[in-house]
Amino acid sequence: MRPIIPDSEFKERVAKIQALMARDGYDMLLCYGNEAEPQYVRYLSDYWPSFETAGVIVPPEGEAFLLIGPESRTFATDRSRLPQIRLLKAFRESSEPEYPGKPLDTFKSVFDELIGNRQIKKFGVAGMPLMTLFVHSELCDALEAHGCIPEKADDLVNSLRMIKTENELACMREAGRITRLTMDYVIANIHPGMTECQVAGLGLAEMHRCGAERESYAPWVLTGDGSNQAISRPRQKVIKAGDMTFLQFGARYEGYASTIGRSVVYGQATQQQRSLIEAGYELQERVLDTISAGVPAAEVARVHKETAYRLGYGEWLLYGPCHGNGLMEGEAPWIELNSTYNLEENMTFCACIFLGNTETKIGLRVEDVFRVTKGGHENLTAYPKELFVV
Amino acid sequence: MRPIIPDSEFKERVAKIQALMARDGYDMLLCYGNEAEPQYVRYLSDYWPSFETAGVIVPPEGEAFLLIGPESRTFATDRSRLPQIRLLKAFRESSEPEYPGKPLDTFKSVFDELIGNRQIKKFGVAGMPLMTLFVHSELCDALEAHGCIPEKADDLVNSLRMIKTENELACMREAGRITRLTMDYVIANIHPGMTECQVAGLGLAEMHRCGAERESYAPWVLTGDGSNQAISRPRQKVIKAGDMTFLQFGARYEGYASTIGRSVVYGQATQQQRSLIEAGYELQERVLDTISAGVPAAEVARVHKETAYRLGYGEWLLYGPCHGNGLMEGEAPWIELNSTYNLEENMTFCACIFLGNTETKIGLRVEDVFRVTKGGHENLTAYPKELFVV
Repeated sequence: MRPIIPDSEFKERVAKIQALMARDGYDMLLCYGNEAEPQYVRYLSDYWPSFETAGVIVPPEGEAFLLIGPESRTFATDRSRLPQIRLLKAFRESSEPEYPGKPLDTFKSVFDELIGNRQIKKFGVAGMPLMTLFVHSELCDALEAHGCIPEKADDLVNSLRMIKTENELACMREAGRITRLTMDYVIANIHPGMTECQVAGLGLAEMHRCGAERESYAPWVLTGDGSNQAISRPRQKVIKAGDMTFLQFGARYEGYASTIGRSVVYGQATQQQRSLIEAGYELQERVLDTISAGVPAAEVARVHKETAYRLGYGEWLLYGPCHGNGLMEGEAPWIELNSTYNLEENMTFCACIFLGNTETKIGLRVEDVFRVTKGGHENLTAYPKELFVV
Repeated sequence: MRPIIPDSEFKERVAKIQALMARDGYDMLLCYGNEAEPQYVRYLSDYWPSFETAGVIVPPEGEAFLLIGPESRTFATDRSRLPQIRLLKAFRESSEPEYPGKPLDTFKSVFDELIGNRQIKKFGVAGMPLMTLFVHSELCDALEAHGCIPEKADDLVNSLRMIKTENELACMREAGRITRLTMDYVIANIHPGMTECQVAGLGLAEMHRCGAERESYAPWVLTGDGSNQAISRPRQKVIKAGDMTFLQFGARYEGYASTIGRSVVYGQATQQQRSLIEAGYELQERVLDTISAGVPAAEVARVHKETAYRLGYGEWLLYGPCHGNGLMEGEAPWIELNSTYNLEENMTFCACIFLGNTETKIGLRVEDVFRVTKGGHENLTAYPKELFVV
C-alpha cells in the first residue's frame, strides 16, 4: 500500500488554518497558486493547476472552496479533495479568453455564498508574491464594498506547512526512495558522448517508472564549464571524458518534492575533482551533525561557513546551508546566518551544499532531504557519499 | 547540422520590435515572463528563467537588455543572446529573499542607463497578464517620475511572433520530428498494467534521447474515465485492456513547442471507440482541407462545427478548432467562430480537435501542428491517422 494523504487530513488542515485565522483576526483567506508554484493550493485541496491558475478560499468556519479557471472543471472534479468547486474568470489562461455566455462565478458571488451579508474586515492571501496584477485587481474590486484590501498571509499557512505530519513524512520517504532509484539508474547509464539533455531524460524515465507523479523541478545536468550555475537547466552540451558532471534529480510523489545532488567523474578523478567532491561531502556531514530539535538555525549556518573556510572553499559559497522542503523543493524556512528561530521536530529541509567557482566555472551541489528529530536528524534520501566513477 | 535561431535573427527581432514601438508611440517596452510562460523573454533573448522570473527591456533604439533575478547570473550569461544583463530584485523568487548588501540594479537605474534624462511618455508590457503585483508595483514606482503607467502591449509582440521565419520553421520541423519519434516509442511500449504516469515517463525518456531540450508541456495520458478532461495531468491510474487511452506528447526544441495527440486501444476497438476515433480524424481532415492563406479564420471554425454536428459529435465540442503554436504549445492567434482576421502564409497552428462527453467521461484530442501556405498547409508533425491497436 503506497502512502497517501487521507481526506481526513485535508479537512484537518482547513480546520487548523481557520484556528490561525481566528487568532490573527482574518475574516477570509485565499490560498493562490499557479502551474509552477501550486504549493498553497495543493496543501488544502490536492489540486495542481495546469495552464490556468487556482485558489482555495477559506471562510472563518465551514467548508473551503476550490476556485479554478473556466476550462478545468472535469480535471479539478477528478482531483480535488474539496468537493465544492467554483469557476472564475480571474483564474483563466494568460492569453485571456473571454468565454462569452459561459456562466461563471466571481469573487463577490463566492463571498456571498460563503458568508452572506457579513463584512470582511481583514482578508489574507497566501501566495501573494505569485499573484498576478489581474487577479489582485479582481479581488480588490470585490473587497471594495467591505472597505479592506488583501494582506500577505504566506507565513500563516507556512507555519503549519513547515511541521510535517506522519502521513506527509511517509510520502516524503517514498519520494526519497524513488529519487534514490533515479540516481542509481542515471549513474549506471550516463556516459561520455551523451548530451546533458539526454541524461535528464534518463532520470525522468526512471522516476516515472518507479512511481513518481512527476519531477520535483526541471532536472539539472551540468558538465564541465557551467557546473557552477546555482540555478540552471540541462544543455545540448556533449559530455567529455575529462569533465565532472553535476547531477540533480528530484521525484515528486503525492505532491512532495524530493531531491538528491551528486557529481560523477569519468575513468578517474583528477586531484582537483576529488578534492572538491570530498569537500562537498565533508561540509554536508558537518552540517548534518549539528541538526537537532532546539538548535538555533543560525548555529547550523555558522558551522557551514566555518567548515567551508577551514576546507579552503569559503570563497566558493553562494548561500546555504539548508532550505525547507515539502510541496516545493525549496520553501520556507531557510537556514541562514541571520535566522532567528530554533529547529523543531519534524521540520524538513534540504541540506543543500553548493560550491561554485566563477573563474574556472566548475562547481557542484551535494543535496539530500532530512527531517529534524529530537536528538538529531533522519535522512529521507540518504544517498551514498562516495566517488562516483563511470 | 541541427537547426538553431542565429544571433543575427535575435538582433533582427529587436529591430522589428523597435520599428513597431515607433509606429505605436512607445518609448520603452518590457517583455515579461516566468518559468511556465517564458515566451516573450525567450523570443528576444533565448533565455528561459527557472525559479526566478525575467524580462527584456527594449529602448527606442540600440541594444535591448536582459533583466534577471539576483541568483541567475552564471546561468543567464551562458544562455542569453543579449550580452547586456542586469540583476533586479523585482525578478527574485517568490519566497522573497532580501539579498542584503548585494549590489542590484532597479528599473530606474536601467532606464537611466538606456535613455538618460529622456522622458518615457508611453511604456508597454508584453506578458502583462503574467505580471505579478510586486513587479508591477516596482515598475509603477519607477515610472512615476515620468508620469505614465505600464500599458498592455502583448499584441505588438505577438504580431511579429505569429508569422514564422525560415529558421523558426526549421526548428519547428525538428520539434515535430522528435515528437513523432516520441509517439512511435510510446505506442510501441504502452501496455495494460502500466500507470498513466509511467506512460508519461516513456515519452519523456524518448524525446530527450532524440534531441529535445525538454517537454512542450506536462504530457497527458488519460485512460478510460477522465479522457474527456480538456486540461489535465497523468494519474496513478492503471490502464485496463478495455480502456481507450488518449496520449498527448510534445517535444520542445530550441524553445519551439511541438505536440501530437492520438488515442490507442488494446486488443480490439469497440464500435463506440472506433467511431469516436474516426470522427476525430475526419474532423481534423476537414479542418485542414479549409486551410490556405487568405481564408477567413472564422470560416475554418464554421467548417469544424458543422462537420462535428454532421458526424453526430456536435455536443462533444468544447472549443476549437485551432490555436497558434510556436514558443508555447498554445499562443495567439486562436481560430474561433468570432475570429475577424484572415489566415496568412507562415502562421503556424495546432489543429486541435477535442471531443469530450461529460456523461460517459470519455474523450480524445487529435492534434497536429501545421503551417499555412499559399495554396493550403504544410503539416509539421504529420502523424498517421490510423486505428492504433496495442
